[in-house]
Amino acid sequence: MASFRDKLDAACRANGSLLCVGLDPDPQRMPVPDVFQFNKAIVDATADLVCAYKPNMAFYEALGLPGLEALQRTVEHIRSQAPGVVVIGDSKRGDIGPSARAYATALFEVWGFDATTANAYGGGDTLRPFLEWPGRGVFVWCRSSNSGAADLQDLRVDGNGTPVYQELAARSRQWADDGSLGLVLGATYPRELKRVRELCPETPFLIPGVGAQGGALAEAVSGGTDANGRNAVINSSRGVLYASRGQDFAQAARDAAARLKDEIDDVLAGEGVGWS
Amino acid sequence: MASFRDKLDAACRANGSLLCVGLDPDPQRMPVPDVFQFNKAIVDATADLVCAYKPNMAFYEALGLPGLEALQRTVEHIRSQAPGVVVIGDSKRGDIGPSARAYATALFEVWGFDATTANAYGGGDTLRPFLEWPGRGVFVWCRSSNSGAADLQDLRVDGNGTPVYQELAARSRQWADDGSLGLVLGATYPRELKRVRELCPETPFLIPGVGAQGGALAEAVSGGTDANGRNAVINSSRGVLYASRGQDFAQAARDAAARLKDEIDDVLAGEGVGWS
Repeated sequence: MASFRDKLDAACRANGSLLCVGLDPDPQRMPVPDVFQFNKAIVDATADLVCAYKPNMAFYEALGLPGLEALQRTVEHIRSQAPGVVVIGDSKRGDIGPSARAYATALFEVWGFDATTANAYGGGDTLRPFLEWPGRGVFVWCRSSNSGAADLQDLRVDGNGTPVYQELAARSRQWADDGSLGLVLGATYPRELKRVRELCPETPFLIPGVGAQGGALAEAVSGGTDANGRNAVINSSRGVLYASRGQDFAQAARDAAARLKDEIDDVLAGEGVGWS
Repeated sequence: MASFRDKLDAACRANGSLLCVGLDPDPQRMPVPDVFQFNKAIVDATADLVCAYKPNMAFYEALGLPGLEALQRTVEHIRSQAPGVVVIGDSKRGDIGPSARAYATALFEVWGFDATTANAYGGGDTLRPFLEWPGRGVFVWCRSSNSGAADLQDLRVDGNGTPVYQELAARSRQWADDGSLGLVLGATYPRELKRVRELCPETPFLIPGVGAQGGALAEAVSGGTDANGRNAVINSSRGVLYASRGQDFAQAARDAAARLKDEIDDVLAGEGVGWS
């Protein structure tokens, strides 16, 4: 069976795109009231421009069971309309033993995601259950894009002065090296992103924080991709979803996604690793 | 409004108990097939013995939408049958900005929990949304009870050699000092638990890992409670829920919970901080 990294690579090549659109429905900002109809319009408008969609569980859970039903329909819709696109369930889950296994069951079987995000504060053994599903991926939260990221992630480890997030990145290579384990690194800290790419040359990266969070796109693409200009998923959520709050929102989302894709492609072409 | 710590203290005094029963329904082990009926029987059998119930989201999510409906009914049942008991939603959530706010909305408004558990790898600002609900609590995962806990939590911080989990504990006092922020510390590492109690003399502790996970109860109670023998929630899940797999499971759960409560009370009495 193909590894998750292979599956992701195939999705990127199919549309010639590293772009991921985050599906974070916010009733305060959505121009239509129905979550599924909103997501459907976004997916239909962008399916040929992306390698992945990333629904963030938090936004669906905040809407209760109807929100989760809308998520279920959204995943089904992506599978039928964009079968080559990867679906990453952004859950940041992390727990021990049987609880971790239950989360993996929820994410991979109930929701049917190709990959999830996870929080490894609990240690390497908390990730093991997620690695038991062949072909599925888990992106471990390494260096986040918020200002408080430094509180724990930048603490320097005694002896060698390595920040915790780099120690995590180095250890993650021991936890799995079969293309199932990736890392989440915010675009808002391009220097840290680049450093982790040096530590983990073959690891899939999920890079949120471009667009609304202000991360510099060119640096993120240049520093976050591997030596072949691949193996990185560049995510934008709000910048695409809420490009317009009028009835033209789907077209505006398409335009925003196309602009981002073009900017990413320009960086890749400039480095001689374009799609042609 | 009463702080979460006050609310928890009132719940402990009402039943004279520090015991929390974790509601982790596992269809492989449940003697009845229906999750709500199982939980209802456990709650009805133990409501006068506990200060809190702790449903772990993972087990409900693994069962899909029907599992979450059973959780909803379970919380309603606890509210009607044991209104003085605190309900802690064990979610280990952690994310940034709007995502963190959406998780807090889900946990405090959709599910209506009195408190949740959270993962602070993302830093202090990821907890802030959880602190915006007056009277609710957030227990930050500090030192976990699994063997891999050491991977990140025991890394020693440059300069002073403090382990990461102690650094987290110390910082947590700066993030909130109004009785809304607690810590999760596994009973399986009693020395670490005791050290964090020294660092955080007034912080509510949630202590899982007694019973099935083999944590030593007496050390956990003695080291984890505050100077008055309070402010600690001692959780057992599997040891109570699956005390019997026969039709006598509810009575067996009651017996197991009563034994644990007695053991806890003996430790408190021995230290001169019993309930009388």
